[in-house]
Amino acid sequence: MSTAEERADSDLQSWAEVTPDAARRLLLAAVEAFAERGYHATTTRDIASRAGMSPAALYIHYKTKEELLHRISRIGHEKALEILRTAARREGSATERLADAVSSFVRWHARGRTTARVVQYELDSLGPDARAEILALRRQVDAEVRGIIEEGAAAGEFDVLDVQGTTLAVLSLCIDVARWFNVNGPRTPEEIGELYADLVLRMVGAKNRK
Amino acid sequence: MSTAEERADSDLQSWAEVTPDAARRLLLAAVEAFAERGYHATTTRDIASRAGMSPAALYIHYKTKEELLHRISRIGHEKALEILRTAARREGSATERLADAVSSFVRWHARGRTTARVVQYELDSLGPDARAEILALRRQVDAEVRGIIEEGAAAGEFDVLDVQGTTLAVLSLCIDVARWFNVNGPRTPEEIGELYADLVLRMVGAKNRK
Repeated sequence: MSTAEERADSDLQSWAEVTPDAARRLLLAAVEAFAERGYHATTTRDIASRAGMSPAALYIHYKTKEELLHRISRIGHEKALEILRTAARREGSATERLADAVSSFVRWHARGRTTARVVQYELDSLGPDARAEILALRRQVDAEVRGIIEEGAAAGEFDVLDVQGTTLAVLSLCIDVARWFNVNGPRTPEEIGELYADLVLRMVGAKNRK
Repeated sequence: MSTAEERADSDLQSWAEVTPDAARRLLLAAVEAFAERGYHATTTRDIASRAGMSPAALYIHYKTKEELLHRISRIGHEKALEILRTAARREGSATERLADAVSSFVRWHARGRTTARVVQYELDSLGPDARAEILALRRQVDAEVRGIIEEGAAAGEFDVLDVQGTTLAVLSLCIDVARWFNVNGPRTPEEIGELYADLVLRMVGAKNRK
């Protein structure tokens, strides 16, 4: 058996920035509790207890349950943006960059499926301000992928009828990996990343697919 | 303002089979409650109250909360199977049948997003027997789409490297529409269905795309 921290760590390599240790342990406990029981069925007492702490100790770090969800959602979205931005801005053709963006985004959703599910399915549980902040991050995520597709179309590498709709479909395809991915299934995150990069290059009509 | 029944009816045209009326009203109330608060945060008392009934009246129709989820999940999966089976077994080329399967499956997920979310995201909340029954239905859903892709590949209409993986991706793309579809968004279910049919024909390398 692995600890909650080890499990969530293998999910998403973005928790290191959360300090002190107690604040990180609480965040990891919240991810697991929200994923298992849903946001509304989880109490701050449940989260504290999973982290081996008292409710009073939780309130030192987080004022409300929503603050925990907001923090998890922000970390998840910032990491998503970083992954896509890195792929979008590297050297290489639009074809290479789109394949890289898709395969790395897919690998991250497969490995970080627990966090990704919480982030995606509990978006409506955020309050208006937190939600507005996260939606702004989502528009940036969208813009990175749309940018690569637009460049590929302009350069004649791709043949795309509907850039906005294709961008939406590409992101949707990658995100849904978090719903169905199974660690005991027949495919590794790397294999799914490679398959999906090829499928997405087909979707954009890339002329130079391998 | 529409009633819960009107809203859920526009979501999914499969509730008519549920009789008597009280049993149907309770099922619709459960869909809404599970979608809003999650399965674990919803009590049978909440569901009865949403349906304007007493908890005792609920127990006449459903012994447990899980029975409600099981019934919702079975209706959703049977309808999914019916939609794909109809498209798979109609007259026409594999290209036409795949386009039809994808566009109708997408339209249904857009219109029935509330039910679809409950069915997809609460699968782990089912007990072992109910879960096994639903997983068997999911394998049949998968087999319908895989069948069309295999036939298209065998007939030389499609160019597919990985039939199993492509089937998974096609279903995943359609299902995730329920997560992001917004009735106030710029696209209708019909428009998304058409866009996605084209994207999926690209994914399978269809030679006779329009």
